[in-house]
Amino acid sequence: MIKIVEESNKKEMATRVNGADCFYSYSKNSSFQRNAIDAAKELIKEAVFSKLDIACLSSSNTFRVTDLGCSMGPNTFLAVQNILEAVENKYRTQWRNSEVPDFQVFFSDQAANDFNELFQSLPPDRNYFAMGVPGSFYSRLFPKAHLHFVYSSFSLQCLSKVPEEVLDRNSPAWNKGRAHYSNSAHQVVEAYSAQYARDMGCFLNARAQEIVEGGLMAFVVPGRPNGTPHAQNYYNMTLDLFGSCLLDMAKKGVIAEDKVDSFNLPMYNASLDEVEAIVKYNGCFSIERMENLPQEKLQPNVFRSTVRAGMENIVRANFGEDILDEFFDSLNKKYEESTSVLESVTAVSLFVLLKRHSK
Amino acid sequence: MIKIVEESNKKEMATRVNGADCFYSYSKNSSFQRNAIDAAKELIKEAVFSKLDIACLSSSNTFRVTDLGCSMGPNTFLAVQNILEAVENKYRTQWRNSEVPDFQVFFSDQAANDFNELFQSLPPDRNYFAMGVPGSFYSRLFPKAHLHFVYSSFSLQCLSKVPEEVLDRNSPAWNKGRAHYSNSAHQVVEAYSAQYARDMGCFLNARAQEIVEGGLMAFVVPGRPNGTPHAQNYYNMTLDLFGSCLLDMAKKGVIAEDKVDSFNLPMYNASLDEVEAIVKYNGCFSIERMENLPQEKLQPNVFRSTVRAGMENIVRANFGEDILDEFFDSLNKKYEESTSVLESVTAVSLFVLLKRHSK
Repeated sequence: MIKIVEESNKKEMATRVNGADCFYSYSKNSSFQRNAIDAAKELIKEAVFSKLDIACLSSSNTFRVTDLGCSMGPNTFLAVQNILEAVENKYRTQWRNSEVPDFQVFFSDQAANDFNELFQSLPPDRNYFAMGVPGSFYSRLFPKAHLHFVYSSFSLQCLSKVPEEVLDRNSPAWNKGRAHYSNSAHQVVEAYSAQYARDMGCFLNARAQEIVEGGLMAFVVPGRPNGTPHAQNYYNMTLDLFGSCLLDMAKKGVIAEDKVDSFNLPMYNASLDEVEAIVKYNGCFSIERMENLPQEKLQPNVFRSTVRAGMENIVRANFGEDILDEFFDSLNKKYEESTSVLESVTAVSLFVLLKRHSK
Repeated sequence: MIKIVEESNKKEMATRVNGADCFYSYSKNSSFQRNAIDAAKELIKEAVFSKLDIACLSSSNTFRVTDLGCSMGPNTFLAVQNILEAVENKYRTQWRNSEVPDFQVFFSDQAANDFNELFQSLPPDRNYFAMGVPGSFYSRLFPKAHLHFVYSSFSLQCLSKVPEEVLDRNSPAWNKGRAHYSNSAHQVVEAYSAQYARDMGCFLNARAQEIVEGGLMAFVVPGRPNGTPHAQNYYNMTLDLFGSCLLDMAKKGVIAEDKVDSFNLPMYNASLDEVEAIVKYNGCFSIERMENLPQEKLQPNVFRSTVRAGMENIVRANFGEDILDEFFDSLNKKYEESTSVLESVTAVSLFVLLKRHSK
């Protein structure tokens, strides 16, 4: 029996205390993320077809899937349906002698997620038992050897917290005057990269215990092509615009400079090289597939219409109600002005498919 | 694989369309229900101690518990903790050679329950993996052979819907001018009793598939002592006061009479004899224990302070905002005036412990 020490809650709190939810979480249910789901859809079908072993079900009469960082729907329902259709198809074609099992789907996100909305919008004609699981995926969420397929989309770029050094005025990694790391001193970048490695380590350790031998895990995240400087990455560039708007307003005296100093986005956009190194260090999973998926960029009108909805709470919580209009006008303007620069860089999402080793 | 036909949602809708949530659901988290939990606490400890077989775990390394009709907490957390402590204690004393398994707890209630509140108030030092399961317990909620201990408290008195005959002007069971059945024609009582038998049949059929062989199910519900006339039962008498207030207001012309005619509470207070017959007819469970638990009655000041909070929405939805003050003043007055009559009858809650047969 394990003791659920609420590391998860502590981490959630840390993230929320720092006030920065994930910048791209606003897009979880937008057409922007839908694009990544569509790209991953075929890869997941193929993964189930060619990489899933019936042995991983052993004596279980239930096939268990989770979406970690599911948000409120509807994208999570589409993603889950795609996985289950692929599994069902596998039973119909390759495993014709086995009965199709019950499907159980665990929709998981932080406890602050709107599970009420999620539960009330579940597809009425679903062919699975739906469960909600509150908590941070950087901690244990499930019993041992419980899951057959783990999916996560546009969530693993969110760190459990802002690295502590970055908030420490006495550290060489203090990120003064910036909300993001990609144009900061190398010590800041290293602090973020180390935090990402620690968090992904926790994530993989937890999942290694929860996924059955032979079970699969697929995730999609906004990423950075191998070898591309942090500052030359589409995602980082947009996050830098966010920071630069804050700094402009501090310079104008609209917000206090030390508030900007202590505000940092808890996000990291990794490359496949980095992910590969962390997975290998963990040692419990084989890498079955890794791909850079081309990622559509946000058009300025889409940026304008969706970013404020997703980021308003965070800006309000940290800098007050009064600056909202000015801040988002300025952010939209900067994004529009940056269109040609943003067009010149590559945007990728990472697709990673792992299989739980036999012990 | 099963197809989740949304019978559950349909039933929830039916209940909600009729606008009558469970009259006593307001007390789910009050000290009133706490009293029943306390009484059941020792019986459940004893049930785990003397009736739970380690064989029911077979190869599973996880002990799975659900609270059906859990509401929002905190009573559900106390009930679950009591069950898990008893199981843990059993491992420490009787099953010393087996490792204590992981605990997984499924908090289940209708999709309209406030799961956000539930998830955000989970005990931070819990020793179980917490999941939420939205849906009606009159339908399947879990995969086959999934659960080791099912618990339900003050929920199974809620019918899936008001029996149709009761709403039909052309039926001898039409319940004209009443919101409850206990002082109505025998056809009305029979319609309610039949609906209860159908619902409990669905409940037992669903659980028979979901509970492992040797697994236990314990439930507590407001009840009626064997042989007591429906009209002489404490719960029914309070529900009749509710109906009688509505009728008074219709007579005064404050609300339309046909609205009262079409409003019925979807609740039934059964006796142990009735429960026993339904369980035996189902045939999948052995009755391990049945008890009438003495039930504390609501003091008028407690009635006043809690009933409006729990029932306001239902009255508003069916009869409008304007009548609320008058209605609840009148209900409180009637309850106070009835104190001596209510004191003269016995109030019981039923405790029922079932074990899933081997097939």
